[in-house]
Amino acid sequence: MSDPVSPPSPVRTVGILGGGQLGRMLALAGARLGLKTIVYCPEADSPAFDVAAAHVIAAYEDETALAAFAETVDVVTYEFENVPAATAAFLDARVPVRPGTRSLAVAQDRLSEKSFLTGLGIPTAPFRAVDSLDDLQAAIAEIGFPAVLKTRRFGYDGKGQVKITDPDDLAHAFEAMKGAPSILEGWVPFRREISVLTARGLDGVSVTFDVPENEHSRHILKFSRVPADLRPETRDAAMVIGDRVAAALDHVGVVAIELFLLETLEGERLIANEIAPRVHNSGHWTESACLVSQFEAHMRAVAGLPLSPPTRHSDVEMENLIGDEARDPERFLAEAGASLHLYGKAEIRPGRKMGHVNRIRPRSDRR
Amino acid sequence: MSDPVSPPSPVRTVGILGGGQLGRMLALAGARLGLKTIVYCPEADSPAFDVAAAHVIAAYEDETALAAFAETVDVVTYEFENVPAATAAFLDARVPVRPGTRSLAVAQDRLSEKSFLTGLGIPTAPFRAVDSLDDLQAAIAEIGFPAVLKTRRFGYDGKGQVKITDPDDLAHAFEAMKGAPSILEGWVPFRREISVLTARGLDGVSVTFDVPENEHSRHILKFSRVPADLRPETRDAAMVIGDRVAAALDHVGVVAIELFLLETLEGERLIANEIAPRVHNSGHWTESACLVSQFEAHMRAVAGLPLSPPTRHSDVEMENLIGDEARDPERFLAEAGASLHLYGKAEIRPGRKMGHVNRIRPRSDRR
Repeated sequence: MSDPVSPPSPVRTVGILGGGQLGRMLALAGARLGLKTIVYCPEADSPAFDVAAAHVIAAYEDETALAAFAETVDVVTYEFENVPAATAAFLDARVPVRPGTRSLAVAQDRLSEKSFLTGLGIPTAPFRAVDSLDDLQAAIAEIGFPAVLKTRRFGYDGKGQVKITDPDDLAHAFEAMKGAPSILEGWVPFRREISVLTARGLDGVSVTFDVPENEHSRHILKFSRVPADLRPETRDAAMVIGDRVAAALDHVGVVAIELFLLETLEGERLIANEIAPRVHNSGHWTESACLVSQFEAHMRAVAGLPLSPPTRHSDVEMENLIGDEARDPERFLAEAGASLHLYGKAEIRPGRKMGHVNRIRPRSDRR
Repeated sequence: MSDPVSPPSPVRTVGILGGGQLGRMLALAGARLGLKTIVYCPEADSPAFDVAAAHVIAAYEDETALAAFAETVDVVTYEFENVPAATAAFLDARVPVRPGTRSLAVAQDRLSEKSFLTGLGIPTAPFRAVDSLDDLQAAIAEIGFPAVLKTRRFGYDGKGQVKITDPDDLAHAFEAMKGAPSILEGWVPFRREISVLTARGLDGVSVTFDVPENEHSRHILKFSRVPADLRPETRDAAMVIGDRVAAALDHVGVVAIELFLLETLEGERLIANEIAPRVHNSGHWTESACLVSQFEAHMRAVAGLPLSPPTRHSDVEMENLIGDEARDPERFLAEAGASLHLYGKAEIRPGRKMGHVNRIRPRSDRR
C-alpha cells in the first residue's frame, strides 16, 4: 500500500562563511530548524565541517568556488566580520548575504564603527583617525594620555593595539601598526564590561537577550554572567542600544555590542566599544539558559523565519575553556547543573578557545 | 611566530546505526560534546546524514561495508531496536556496540521482553507464546477476552497487532500474523500511559529523568507532559523500574520503558508494556526542559563519559508534529515559550513524524 504523497515542504539551505566554533554552533542550531548548512572555509579540518551537510575548502578570493557555493545555497551568512568585502559583494550579487554588507562594512573598520555609533547618539571613547606620525601627534594632543592606538581593521582579542601612556611611546606605537590605517582612542577607565545581543528578523522585528556581564583574562573572554548586577535603567539602556544599532544597520541576524560600564558620580554610564555583526562569545550562555539560543535566533533571521521573545528560564554563568583548560573535560561533565560544550578541535593550543561550560541555577527573581 | 603545540586531546568517533530523526538528534548531541559521528543507514537521504561527519549508505547485511564502518569508529550505537542480531554481532566482534547485544535481544522480541520483565518482578499484562491456531485457542482460554495478538518482532506504533474480543476473531487474528511467531497479551484497561527514561553509564551508574505522561493519537505518540499528574510513590516506583531494567540488561545508554497506569481500588498500579533500548520519543521534552537531554546522556554513556544528575529547569509539554501538522511550522516559531524541532525530512507523508514542539513554563513546584 503506498501512502498518498504530498509535495515536499520547502527545505532551505544556508551557506556559512567560516568553519570555526561559531559556524559549527550555527550549523547545529540550523539543523534543529530542519535547515541544511554548507560551510565554506579555506582551512581543512574546520570544526564546522563535521556537522554540515556539505563543505567547501577554498580561498575567500576563489570566484569559481564562490560561484559554485552560491548555486547550492538559498542564503549566505558568516561567522566572522573579516569576510573580505569583495567576497561578500560577489556572493550578494548571486544570493542574499545576511547580515548585509552594510553591517560588515561598519564593523570591519574601527573608524566607521565609532563614527556610526556616535552618529546614533551612542557614546564611545573619543577617537581620531591616524595615518601618519603627524596624525598621531595631533590626535594625542586632543585626546590626551593614556590612549590606545589600534589598527582600523582585523584586530581581535587585544591583537593590533598598543597603549600609549607618555610622549615617548608615540613613535614605537606608530611603528607597531606597520603602516596600517589606524585609530587613536581615548582610554576608558572602566571597571566592568557588559554586552548586548540583539537578533533582528527579515521583517525588521528585533528581540534582545538579557544583558551579560563579561570578565576577560589576558584579553580573552573568560566568563559571562546573567543576570548582570546592573541598575534596571542601565540594563534597559543597553537593550535600547542593541535595538538601535540593529535597526540602523538594517541588520538581519544577531549583532553584539560590547559596552564599557563606568560608575560616575551621576550613576552608571555606558560607552560602546565594539560591534560584532554576528553571534558572539558573550552569548554562548543562551544555549543553556534560554529556550532559543543566539545561534537559533541568527539562523531563524537569516532564513527569513520568525523570531520569538527570548525566554530565559535560568540564571547562568558561561566559562570559556581556553587552551589547557579543556584538557580534562570529564570533570565538567560530572558537575550537577553544568553543561559542557566542546568544539571538536583536534589540537589544544595556548589561547585557543576549545569549548565552554554553562552553569545554570534557578532564576533569582523567581525564588 | 608559531605557538608551542600540545598533543591532540582524544577525539572519539561514534558510529550510529540508523539515519532517522533519533540518529540525527544523537549526532547533534554528540557534536556538542566534541564527538564526531558516522551514520550507517541503507536509505539515501537519511535525515541524520546532514549533521554527521560522514555517512555510509549500505544494507545492514553488507559485511564489507560493516567492516569498513567498524574501522572508522571507536564505538557503535543504534537508533532503533530492530538492528539485525547478525549485524550487531558482526560489529561487536570489531568494536564495542552500546547498548549491548543483550538489550537488543530482549527488546526485539515481545516474548523475551515480557519474560525478562516478569523475571525482575515487574508486572506486565498476562501473556502466552502463540505459534499456531491451537496455541492461540489455549492461550485465550487462559487469558480470556479481550486480548491482543501481536507479532513477537518488528511491531511499532500499533503495527502488527490485532485485538480479539470474541471467539469468532481467533482465526482472522491468527491469519493476520502471516505465520510470524506471535504473543497473546491480556487486555490492560489502562486510562493513562507514562514512561521512564534511564541513562546508564559504562561505570554502571545510572540517572533517571522525570517521568512523562504520554498521550497517543491513532497509536502514535502525540503529547508527553512533565511533570505527570502522579502520586509521588507511583513516580518513584516508575523510576525504580527504569533503574532495575537498565541494571539487569547491563545497559549502556538510554533505555525507555512504557508503562500503563491503572487506577485500582488499592491505588495507582503500573504495568510495563514495552522496553525501547534507545532514546525514545517520550523523552524529546528533555531537550528543552533539562540541561542535559536524553540524546546527550546517551552519547555520554556510549562514549564512556560521565553522566550528571538530570537538571530539569522547567515544566514542559512535547507535541509531536505528524504528517500535515508540520505544514506551517512558522506558527510554532512565533509562539513565546515554544521551541520547534524539525527533522529535515524532505517529504511530508501521513503518519510520518516530521518534528516536535516543546512548550516550557516555570516549574510549578518553584512558583
